[in-house]
Amino acid sequence: MNRRFVAERFSKPKAKLALDPEALKKYDDIIDLSIGDTDIVTDKAIIDKAYNDALAGYTRYGEPKGDPELIDAIIKAWGEDFGEKIAPQNVLVTASSLLGMTIAMAAVLDPGDEVIVFAPYFTLYRPQAEFSGGVVREVPLDPANNYRIDEEQLRSFINEKTKVIVFNNPVNPTGIAYGKEDMEIIRKVAIEYDLLVMADEIYTFYLYDGEFSPIRLMPGMAERTITLNSFSKNFLMTGWRVGYIIAEPYLIDAIYSVSDFLIYSTPSISQRAAIKALEIRKDVYEKYVPIYRDRVFYSIDRIKRILYLDLVPPGGTFYIFPSFRRTGLSTKEFTDLLFEKCHIIVAAGNLFGDCGDGSFRIACTVPKEQLEEAYDRMEKLTF
Amino acid sequence: MNRRFVAERFSKPKAKLALDPEALKKYDDIIDLSIGDTDIVTDKAIIDKAYNDALAGYTRYGEPKGDPELIDAIIKAWGEDFGEKIAPQNVLVTASSLLGMTIAMAAVLDPGDEVIVFAPYFTLYRPQAEFSGGVVREVPLDPANNYRIDEEQLRSFINEKTKVIVFNNPVNPTGIAYGKEDMEIIRKVAIEYDLLVMADEIYTFYLYDGEFSPIRLMPGMAERTITLNSFSKNFLMTGWRVGYIIAEPYLIDAIYSVSDFLIYSTPSISQRAAIKALEIRKDVYEKYVPIYRDRVFYSIDRIKRILYLDLVPPGGTFYIFPSFRRTGLSTKEFTDLLFEKCHIIVAAGNLFGDCGDGSFRIACTVPKEQLEEAYDRMEKLTF
Repeated sequence: MNRRFVAERFSKPKAKLALDPEALKKYDDIIDLSIGDTDIVTDKAIIDKAYNDALAGYTRYGEPKGDPELIDAIIKAWGEDFGEKIAPQNVLVTASSLLGMTIAMAAVLDPGDEVIVFAPYFTLYRPQAEFSGGVVREVPLDPANNYRIDEEQLRSFINEKTKVIVFNNPVNPTGIAYGKEDMEIIRKVAIEYDLLVMADEIYTFYLYDGEFSPIRLMPGMAERTITLNSFSKNFLMTGWRVGYIIAEPYLIDAIYSVSDFLIYSTPSISQRAAIKALEIRKDVYEKYVPIYRDRVFYSIDRIKRILYLDLVPPGGTFYIFPSFRRTGLSTKEFTDLLFEKCHIIVAAGNLFGDCGDGSFRIACTVPKEQLEEAYDRMEKLTF
Repeated sequence: MNRRFVAERFSKPKAKLALDPEALKKYDDIIDLSIGDTDIVTDKAIIDKAYNDALAGYTRYGEPKGDPELIDAIIKAWGEDFGEKIAPQNVLVTASSLLGMTIAMAAVLDPGDEVIVFAPYFTLYRPQAEFSGGVVREVPLDPANNYRIDEEQLRSFINEKTKVIVFNNPVNPTGIAYGKEDMEIIRKVAIEYDLLVMADEIYTFYLYDGEFSPIRLMPGMAERTITLNSFSKNFLMTGWRVGYIIAEPYLIDAIYSVSDFLIYSTPSISQRAAIKALEIRKDVYEKYVPIYRDRVFYSIDRIKRILYLDLVPPGGTFYIFPSFRRTGLSTKEFTDLLFEKCHIIVAAGNLFGDCGDGSFRIACTVPKEQLEEAYDRMEKLTF
């Protein structure tokens, strides 16, 4: 079958994060560490809320900008957690922060506008930006420098076409958590060149040292920040597809005008669930985050003892991003070997930008026993 | 606040179908006939299924192309209802058919490709096509000819840039249900000019005479049809955001490659609900559709007796699309009058294309008593 009806820009298949379901059938002891999907079922209190509210009639579209009660709950939680008072006009509920990023990019990018991402970066920023004619510029961060942000390097990527800096904190895939010092560089440069910052902050619960602080709280940043958040990771609700955007009202309006024809509204049942999630967020945090923290710390320990791997220890998320450069193998050779010899599936590092080549991402989204088994198998490899 | 960070193409606010929530607060006896949202809560059996499966662990992403059990259920229902055997590779589950149309257009349109729509047409086809660089050509259908499709007229809109015909059946907003004769014109022209047909068939339960037949079943059409369907209207599940696309595997792959970075997956809980919906579809059809049919027929009767209105009687959907041209008023004057004098909100006809000017859409999605009250009020207007 030729692909005669397909648009030019989608005429060549591209690498996806999603696994080929066929690969999973090849061995019966596969350990899949490739997808950032929580393995723990959403808290029952959240499911119960969705159910009861569905029965009570929340099965209709509802307000396309978001359930007013959810928007109120977001405002309340934001105020309590970060001390910033925002208004309903600052909030748009989105069917996942992934969709949120797509429509935010669509709302602000003119063809040819440049989007800066710090690499390694979440795979889908690139097609999201390109979908609206944006041009992605990868700023390669140096693992030898702990993936810290370098002001001179950042400046060297900026020109008159630059419009957006995507700032993911903590970072998928490296797990790096940025503090004030790195954020101050971004703030300074964004203000100096009048840039927008798209702050992807969906792993805020998974921070293993210190407290999270959104970049929009820094002086002069609220007016130039589009904050993307989500219930998927923090609340173990990946399958519900609900997130939100916080930004200036005129930006929210523009993003909403894309959302309107693209999907119209966010699942109303999921929004009711999200209201409960915010209400019990401290319980969720205390009950589930330690499980992931434990897995991450365990993984760091084990990786340190695998001699052909190197690792910049993560400060957040549930990912680790080791380098296998010592083996001398290509990324494809190494991930194929992990699959064929260890029956382990990981995400190849070059999915996260060119500079991710030579590394791979482990998602600690399987029980610890499986992680233990995976590292036992990996430890036996020699090069 | 200036709109400095907004992309040029979204820098001017556009008319939306969604109502301004403020307008609803102006009077305490407003009857809102503007939105095609079912007023009946989703059947309890469907909600129960979603709940039980959520508790059982269906709160994760799941397969990004769709829950395999839902895809199987779609294939089974399609075979039973329409006698066509399709494969899993023909199906993509989407978070609403609205999103389905957006990503289908994105997957096939190159900038400048022309998209034919029969007007009046569902408002959002235009921004959806334009979002991917498509150029919309409105083929104005004549109410005096019962909005029938005219072959010569259709041909006159086709040129070497034409790529897609959007075919909505039955039609939102006019309620027209097309049979074999009209469909044969589309088939003939689509094959002759090698065009794709995007078949928006989301109101198939709401057909008041005869049985629905998908256009992809016509000879030569399966290879050139992208069928869009949804649980929103047929199953009273607007708030769940779940629909599906049926097309050739290479088209499904291309559409999936857009879906992947745009939203990744469809709400898993909603997909479990949809499995149940298909299982009990005959019950749903028998229990709920007569309620809408009754409202539509009642509305036709009442509109006939309102002397300043004209109507082409609908054969399907839960919309009617009367003309008020006899009043001599502009669309804005008439809808403002309906709001201010009758406290009734309707969708202005020009939202559905230029040729909808002079008409308005009533969604029969309120209880019959409210429709009765609305028509009583409208009857009292004189011009």
